[in-house]
Amino acid sequence: MRARDTLPVELPGPVREALLAPLVDHHCRGVRRDDLTRARFERLITEAGTPAPPGTTHFDTPAGAAVRRWCAPVLDLDPHAPPAVYLARRTELGPAEVNRRLLRAAGIVAFLVDTGPDGPELLSAAEMGRLGDAAADEIIRIEQIEQDVAEKASSPVSYISALGQGLADGAARAVGLKSAIAYRHGLDFDPARPGRGSVIAAAGRRLARPGARLTDPVLLRHLLWAAVDVARERGLPLQFHTGYGDPGLDLHRADPALMTGFVRALQPIGVPVVLLHCYPFHRQAAYLANVFPHVYVDIGLVLTRTAAGSAAVMGELLELVPFHKQLFGSDGHGVAETCHLGALYYRRSLARALAVRLADDEWSVPDAARVAHLIGSGNARRLYRL
Amino acid sequence: MRARDTLPVELPGPVREALLAPLVDHHCRGVRRDDLTRARFERLITEAGTPAPPGTTHFDTPAGAAVRRWCAPVLDLDPHAPPAVYLARRTELGPAEVNRRLLRAAGIVAFLVDTGPDGPELLSAAEMGRLGDAAADEIIRIEQIEQDVAEKASSPVSYISALGQGLADGAARAVGLKSAIAYRHGLDFDPARPGRGSVIAAAGRRLARPGARLTDPVLLRHLLWAAVDVARERGLPLQFHTGYGDPGLDLHRADPALMTGFVRALQPIGVPVVLLHCYPFHRQAAYLANVFPHVYVDIGLVLTRTAAGSAAVMGELLELVPFHKQLFGSDGHGVAETCHLGALYYRRSLARALAVRLADDEWSVPDAARVAHLIGSGNARRLYRL
Amino acid sequence: MRARDTLPVELPGPVREALLAPLVDHHCRGVRRDDLTRARFERLITEAGTPAPPGTTHFDTPAGAAVRRWCAPVLDLDPHAPPAVYLARRTELGPAEVNRRLLRAAGIVAFLVDTGPDGPELLSAAEMGRLGDAAADEIIRIEQIEQDVAEKASSPVSYISALGQGLADGAARAVGLKSAIAYRHGLDFDPARPGRGSVIAAAGRRLARPGARLTDPVLLRHLLWAAVDVARERGLPLQFHTGYGDPGLDLHRADPALMTGFVRALQPIGVPVVLLHCYPFHRQAAYLANVFPHVYVDIGLVLTRTAAGSAAVMGELLELVPFHKQLFGSDGHGVAETCHLGALYYRRSLARALAVRLADDEWSVPDAARVAHLIGSGNARRLYRL
Repeated sequence: MRARDTLPVELPGPVREALLAPLVDHHCRGVRRDDLTRARFERLITEAGTPAPPGTTHFDTPAGAAVRRWCAPVLDLDPHAPPAVYLARRTELGPAEVNRRLLRAAGIVAFLVDTGPDGPELLSAAEMGRLGDAAADEIIRIEQIEQDVAEKASSPVSYISALGQGLADGAARAVGLKSAIAYRHGLDFDPARPGRGSVIAAAGRRLARPGARLTDPVLLRHLLWAAVDVARERGLPLQFHTGYGDPGLDLHRADPALMTGFVRALQPIGVPVVLLHCYPFHRQAAYLANVFPHVYVDIGLVLTRTAAGSAAVMGELLELVPFHKQLFGSDGHGVAETCHLGALYYRRSLARALAVRLADDEWSVPDAARVAHLIGSGNARRLYRL
Repeated sequence: MRARDTLPVELPGPVREALLAPLVDHHCRGVRRDDLTRARFERLITEAGTPAPPGTTHFDTPAGAAVRRWCAPVLDLDPHAPPAVYLARRTELGPAEVNRRLLRAAGIVAFLVDTGPDGPELLSAAEMGRLGDAAADEIIRIEQIEQDVAEKASSPVSYISALGQGLADGAARAVGLKSAIAYRHGLDFDPARPGRGSVIAAAGRRLARPGARLTDPVLLRHLLWAAVDVARERGLPLQFHTGYGDPGLDLHRADPALMTGFVRALQPIGVPVVLLHCYPFHRQAAYLANVFPHVYVDIGLVLTRTAAGSAAVMGELLELVPFHKQLFGSDGHGVAETCHLGALYYRRSLARALAVRLADDEWSVPDAARVAHLIGSGNARRLYRL
Repeated sequence: MRARDTLPVELPGPVREALLAPLVDHHCRGVRRDDLTRARFERLITEAGTPAPPGTTHFDTPAGAAVRRWCAPVLDLDPHAPPAVYLARRTELGPAEVNRRLLRAAGIVAFLVDTGPDGPELLSAAEMGRLGDAAADEIIRIEQIEQDVAEKASSPVSYISALGQGLADGAARAVGLKSAIAYRHGLDFDPARPGRGSVIAAAGRRLARPGARLTDPVLLRHLLWAAVDVARERGLPLQFHTGYGDPGLDLHRADPALMTGFVRALQPIGVPVVLLHCYPFHRQAAYLANVFPHVYVDIGLVLTRTAAGSAAVMGELLELVPFHKQLFGSDGHGVAETCHLGALYYRRSLARALAVRLADDEWSVPDAARVAHLIGSGNARRLYRL
């Protein structure tokens, strides 16, 4: 199935072409290279950390229905194939062929891959590019760099210096940095850069338990500001997970508006802040992108997970977000289905929004086409200097 | 007027039949058995605690317009009957006949009735069932049990033991328990079970003012954990009022995401958590149901109150909620119109959502029918083991 | 272009007439009297405090697209005129003619003008009325009165007394008062009236820096309660900025639900509370208007800024707001385009909502017309006793 067959509405030629043009996926992660059991596959199409309750299945979610509807045809099955049929066909084709088909059919020209905390069972950025017939670049996860540093450092002072070096080394090969402080603390962190004394003290405590997940607020803030220094030096944007995610998150502390003080602090420094996912605070994110010149937004993951309901979410984001501030990201992760559906629902939901604006005589055809181009690839090329 | 005449869209036969099939109403309260003045009736079609301001009427609300539109024909009046005509006809028919007509026309096969804090002017669960030609079971309100215990206990120790006994006795005749801690404290309560020492101390203070409404955070948490013990033992779910309610509520403290820590604490225990109402935090509620295996959601009251606007709310809930986690509840209370409209707007709003998914070629007809069946009754039968 | 040509849907005659009837704009500010550079104009069509990032323009926002679409024809240009063409025509006509055309075409019969903190470059209330061929009244900004008093007072006691006098004098010529405490502190302020001792102490500190922007929580609360006293005495409503605004705001502290305690405190006093803008907390605002008899709501600014996306926002407000509690306000400010678009998107978004309710057979034609009349002017006339 080609992308062109999946738009839900008739659109004027130029708008259609702009929507179907290759996308820059500014935020995804790797997908598994191995064959997957049904249990494993179900876990990878949801953010739930557990199997579905007895007698139920994670296929009975909007995202599960979307896999059956839209990915089945890419594997030569009828739409709405039952889960067992879908998974049997997946095994029959083998993971390499499944990944190749789903990634290529997504119509993505470049993947920016968060190589985060995952292991060798996931494809690397280069492999994602190769299978997807696309360019590939890396986004580095700053909490992962800290973890690596903490496990090797011998003293607080060497920890601090190794952290700076680790970030600089990572940034040298990357097109952006990413923070998951929403998971480690929440976005209601103190926006001020912590003093060196308190960082040294916290680093001392940290080195007593270097294998633990970093949750110390002082070190998380130090890490963030060290990342800001590196980002400023190299002209890189800083991505933040906000909103919807896995059950490790306290959702009410992942509202990007809670970061307003930090956003203000970064404005004179000029480091772009990219808010990812955001749901159900995507209106707050659009507000921040509207009033702050250095804030960008992408609802990535959410379009895949809300699937048949994604048009309303996209519509709400478009209420305030400037056309030059929104990005496309699939947040593909774990299985290639998520990349595929990320691109598909991005195109479907934006198509719907543009069709409404054209039918209402709100936007001109050239404007609608230009907006689709900006969000789909233009803004990412400018921001990440691809 | 039969339920089948009230769907707002054309739907394929199986979907239509699934929507019109009898519902299990997993959360309602009793309705008044007596004839009502206009002032009293107006108060019961709103959450406002006061009459409408001078020169206005509570009929000038979405719910008021819905009463005139949809309940008037059940009383043999034209749609949109003026309030005075509607109320005159209500009096003419008498409360028993009005209740009988509105409850039966709701198409409900079983009522799970929160017998909470209300007095003898409300129909009992058994009476609701008899008038509505339906089965009826009870949900016990834990704060009400505490109130009864506090008024009789002679010492902190006997209070604690009577509370446990009261909950156990209540649970023995019920299919679920319900907490209104959102009203008493807010959902931002400490998720930990309080220690026995602090409970005894708090119980001592409580017994000095046994007639007061319980608002002590330690005792509220003790009550909640005692309810968890009983619910686990008997395999019962624990319902929570969240979101929209009467003016006694601080809405921003009724966001169910604030309960995330408590939800996490209950996960290994396995007691199902049922989030009621939720609005305007229904997306947060759907998120919790999506990522935690033991969380269920129902927007009950909200469909009745938002009435003509309910389709958008239902659409937003469906963005993330797993199909096996959503329930139907009318939150009917006070007047049978609220039960009737709860069922009617549940069907209308879900019909709209399903029609969109079918028209967009997102879901198959059998899937849409199956989802309607699960939400309308299947999930409740499984969860409450009816 | 006449207002009648700008409705997006067919509507029955009486509904159409009610929507197109002259509006009472219960909340706007003055517009500039001078010719504007492109940089200045761009700043005035956004809440951003800064120019758009290099290579971008504030015209690439929903509001910017709306200026080109809907204001261009009022200046005899084609819809969707490019920004440069639009601004050249604006200069050619001159500010007086541009203001005259845009204000008159808005179809507004009375402006209630917040004369707040702005200087002589803005039209006064009287001038707004004259250019717009409308009546004009004043709303006084209480923080501005405090600023004037602080700069003149010689002692804490004289500050307190001058503040009371200043508010009384302002109220004598006004139809309402307005607070911007959302910007100065956030809406999570202590609802209690501060004691005289703490006010005197705070006033002492204040007089040491009389030119600074007032942010002291005690004095802000004193100011608010002094305004309540004056409002009660004169029967005036008290408007509050809530939700969406410029980057000086912490959005998560501008949720009107945070003011619930203060709203409760005002209920027995009877001073009406008018919540402005509210987005993205407009559902919370509608809830407050639904359950408290003295709360009113208007999403003003938001309709202009969300423009092509405004129908969804209006739809959400209408989910719960009583028909006698919603108001129309353009929040026009800086350029007459904002007044014009405020009225236009109010009519367009309400037209859409009414059309849906009529098509769904939810409301009768007379009801829909009556609701449009109430929101457009009736409620404001009653509330402000115009």
